[in-house]
Amino acid sequence: MNAQLKGLYVITDQELYPGRSHIDIAAAAIAGGCRIIQLRDKKASDRQFYFTACELRDMTRRVGALFLVNDRVDVAAVVGADGVNIGQTDLPVDAVRKLLGDDAIIGVSADCLEQALEAQKAGADYVGFGPVFPTTTKLDAGEVTGLDELALVCQAVDIPVVAIGGISIENIALVAAAGATCAAVVSAVVCAEDMVRATEELQRKFDEGAIGTIAKGR
Amino acid sequence: MNAQLKGLYVITDQELYPGRSHIDIAAAAIAGGCRIIQLRDKKASDRQFYFTACELRDMTRRVGALFLVNDRVDVAAVVGADGVNIGQTDLPVDAVRKLLGDDAIIGVSADCLEQALEAQKAGADYVGFGPVFPTTTKLDAGEVTGLDELALVCQAVDIPVVAIGGISIENIALVAAAGATCAAVVSAVVCAEDMVRATEELQRKFDEGAIGTIAKGR
Repeated sequence: MNAQLKGLYVITDQELYPGRSHIDIAAAAIAGGCRIIQLRDKKASDRQFYFTACELRDMTRRVGALFLVNDRVDVAAVVGADGVNIGQTDLPVDAVRKLLGDDAIIGVSADCLEQALEAQKAGADYVGFGPVFPTTTKLDAGEVTGLDELALVCQAVDIPVVAIGGISIENIALVAAAGATCAAVVSAVVCAEDMVRATEELQRKFDEGAIGTIAKGR
Repeated sequence: MNAQLKGLYVITDQELYPGRSHIDIAAAAIAGGCRIIQLRDKKASDRQFYFTACELRDMTRRVGALFLVNDRVDVAAVVGADGVNIGQTDLPVDAVRKLLGDDAIIGVSADCLEQALEAQKAGADYVGFGPVFPTTTKLDAGEVTGLDELALVCQAVDIPVVAIGGISIENIALVAAAGATCAAVVSAVVCAEDMVRATEELQRKFDEGAIGTIAKGR
């Protein structure tokens, strides 16, 4: 398990807020203390995506932040990303591992306990689980899982769980308290008036929730 | 230059003829003597595409045929394809080279002389040039280039030129005579009544056209 994979996890999405680019979002998240950045862009051409990934790789390396790439394993390999997040219809984990190597962080998205267990069995380094709460960011997201199922998954798997979907300043502590290793946010940062401040607050609330979990002996 | 990159080049496209899969098409093309197979599928998920690529890699390796992958560089890398064909908005050639290594065949699609020269300068191993003739196979194909511009490009670049777009049994000899190293076909094989026979005939006609070219001292 990568010791750095803990806490707030910011996914850049430049379509949510016109005028804010992947670079702007990542820069603000890093400035606000986030150390896990994922580049996600379903629409960009491979070439555009690659150039953005090059910039984000430099930016994250400078501060020692993890840099993960959504879906595009070739781009992750070429830019030397720390890992990827893949879905259920993307390349199988063993194929991705072959390309990225043993040290790469391979996260697999899951929306139910069965998929989470399968991802672990397939060799994933973390499970991205959700949507925990209702979200409008990802149109193809499935049914909301809720906190109870998140807690169940966190109990059931041995690899870190990255909770995702509708996570905001109001509920991020609950996500940490449910046992999630990370909380992935998109609009809570991207659409915030002050992205740096929002990042700081999300991280602080997550830590508060996680302390509660530790106090309960988990 | 890869000495095998010469002659008929069959691109599998399983949407053109319901019931004929990538595997069926490649098997027939190989049985008909084609030794350059490209897997192209713009719609398949990465996972589906990957499993098909694994099968085609085995099949082509068994007969010593070149196996090229359209667009998906990660899949090409994982399955050990001989190369890829990329477009103008895909990863830059140097990034693909980094991932696939010096021996990989990297083809770049171009639709004008300027793009062809750029591809050569960028380090491409071949230029995919066209559409030489009208085509309905690729909906986003640009304006028809015609044989004269193909001949011009073949003269202007030092790397092999793979002609593409509307190539059929009627015009493939002309393409070879214009100086193209390869002729890439899709529907001329995929939609043929007898795919094996069509492949044989296309290859024969190409060779006849190429002999004409050699006789002219090119």
